Amino acid sequence: MKTGFHVAVVGATGAVGQQMLKTLEERNFPISKLTLLSSKRSAGKKVIFKGEEVVIQEATPESFEGVQIALFSAGGSISKALAPEAVKRGAICVDNTSAFRMDPNTPLVVPEVNEDALHNHNGIIANPNCSTIQMVVGLEPIRKKYGLKKVIVSTYQAVSGAGANAIKEMKDQTASILEEKEFTPEILPCGSDKKHYQIAFNAIPQIDKFEDNGFTFEEMKMINETKKIMDMPDLHVAATCVRIPVETGHSESLFIEVEKEGLTVAEMKDLLKVAPGVVLEDEPENQVYPMAINSVGKNDVFIGRIRQDLDNSKGFYMWVVSDNLLKGAAWNSVQIAESLVKLGLLK
Amino acid sequence: MKTGFHVAVVGATGAVGQQMLKTLEERNFPISKLTLLSSKRSAGKKVIFKGEEVVIQEATPESFEGVQIALFSAGGSISKALAPEAVKRGAICVDNTSAFRMDPNTPLVVPEVNEDALHNHNGIIANPNCSTIQMVVGLEPIRKKYGLKKVIVSTYQAVSGAGANAIKEMKDQTASILEEKEFTPEILPCGSDKKHYQIAFNAIPQIDKFEDNGFTFEEMKMINETKKIMDMPDLHVAATCVRIPVETGHSESLFIEVEKEGLTVAEMKDLLKVAPGVVLEDEPENQVYPMAINSVGKNDVFIGRIRQDLDNSKGFYMWVVSDNLLKGAAWNSVQIAESLVKLGLLK
Repeated sequence: MKTGFHVAVVGATGAVGQQMLKTLEERNFPISKLTLLSSKRSAGKKVIFKGEEVVIQEATPESFEGVQIALFSAGGSISKALAPEAVKRGAICVDNTSAFRMDPNTPLVVPEVNEDALHNHNGIIANPNCSTIQMVVGLEPIRKKYGLKKVIVSTYQAVSGAGANAIKEMKDQTASILEEKEFTPEILPCGSDKKHYQIAFNAIPQIDKFEDNGFTFEEMKMINETKKIMDMPDLHVAATCVRIPVETGHSESLFIEVEKEGLTVAEMKDLLKVAPGVVLEDEPENQVYPMAINSVGKNDVFIGRIRQDLDNSKGFYMWVVSDNLLKGAAWNSVQIAESLVKLGLLK
Repeated sequence: MKTGFHVAVVGATGAVGQQMLKTLEERNFPISKLTLLSSKRSAGKKVIFKGEEVVIQEATPESFEGVQIALFSAGGSISKALAPEAVKRGAICVDNTSAFRMDPNTPLVVPEVNEDALHNHNGIIANPNCSTIQMVVGLEPIRKKYGLKKVIVSTYQAVSGAGANAIKEMKDQTASILEEKEFTPEILPCGSDKKHYQIAFNAIPQIDKFEDNGFTFEEMKMINETKKIMDMPDLHVAATCVRIPVETGHSESLFIEVEKEGLTVAEMKDLLKVAPGVVLEDEPENQVYPMAINSVGKNDVFIGRIRQDLDNSKGFYMWVVSDNLLKGAAWNSVQIAESLVKLGLLK
């Protein structure tokens, strides 16, 4: 009898990698051996996992010998180079980068929505973009009963989505402003773009670089990934993605239009109350609604501010909040691993 | 020949009142006499206007004797009590509170949109809500040529909209968090509501109290005021209003649907480039887009991130930013006063 799997975590020292280890531990994922991998720079560092010291190794193709499941979160270029090597050696890869998400041969999975897509993998399973995951978890219970025609989302995204350096930049900038000191933005809105702007006490309507159509990559990710995960190529989706000075927890303002008549606010609340992965927080009379600071450290997607459009009986609004490092990244990846075990796909 | 008007400012010590005085000075508004009014508590304070000391007096019905134009920004109850008294004494009132905005006999004016409505006043002219003003300035140039069917807005509102105490609360909270000290929220999201939440490093989806339909008063203001200002009772408008940790400068993410076919992003930019009160900041290739911190102290409405919906040729997105204390309050009030002079309505 097998007591667990040989698990590898690639990018073990990053913000998401650290959350993955914490989540694997908390969920008591069945691990017989844990291999922690990183860039050459971080190799040699030690991490405590379940009370035992694990030394991080440099990720090479050979690192994946004997690995059964590898969780990748070390950037798209590392996934592109190493995930196929891991697959060649018999591992299943859960990839948290955008490298394979839109590849037609790679399932893009949010277990609450399309767990069945796992059956058709070719060794790699993509974990969607953080802002997309929390949104589809909220959409699916409604789509199931009333269909879905249109989704228009405006996001309020936390800086931890841009990495640990971005958090530090926001905090340092904030302190400088309060102390009336000078500072120079160096990372946000997007480390790889040319100009950098102040995030402290500001809202920046740019996440990732711009595409030629005027949308950012982040916005196009939300649009394309939502269609793929929900298997609705003709769904009308649009997104405006905005970075705000919040450390962790993405908030989203959604307008949706359903296909069928008859949905009410009361039924929408009932559908979401029992939906997997969702916590309904919606009592306007008691000022109960989701907020970023309350989502930190939790695996759930919090939904509130549900109301019906005043002119369109099929139109509804909702406010969707989740920890972007957990359901948006680490937890969804581990959840995919758990689904693979449950479905008998991990051998 | 008259060299100016007897002007009163009611609420002269408040955040908006202070901006009104600054704006009257900067615009060199024709003033023959300036009467500054406030509550009993602030009476006796002195303010420098154009190099001369002006003593603030307690506002009473008699304060308005001889006043030709009174700018009110001291809360709805003060306006309700004193604006009719001022009118009785021959003054025209420009009221920056919500007291008279939806009164069918009171014009609700944004000069770039409906200056003509000033002709039908009964002594009181209402200044719209801050978040509404900047939005309609951006909508009007498009509506004029292509009509307007639908507007869905999500806001990113600054704390200065909730007053000077809210700014202090945000800064104190922020410092406490950086120093890992305890604190107790006492003002935001809404001073008059029961519960108070942390605004520092958070996003709060509540501005003003909730109505029975699940929308907040702020959201209903945006909906109803937009219809009234644009004189489009059947316009489909919806709003989600959110407070974020920004000191000054409201940002808005808009989806709009026009009536007529044929509008392109290029033409929308051309229309907005020459629109009164608008500054187009829209060069995604150079990361040029409006941001709250850049709007502070400016009278204009900044618009960018213009793009066409990918599925609906009549659908467009835009990002609208403005200083909520200026175009959103003080500048729009003074601008109404200037329009009254220009149209010969101030006698």
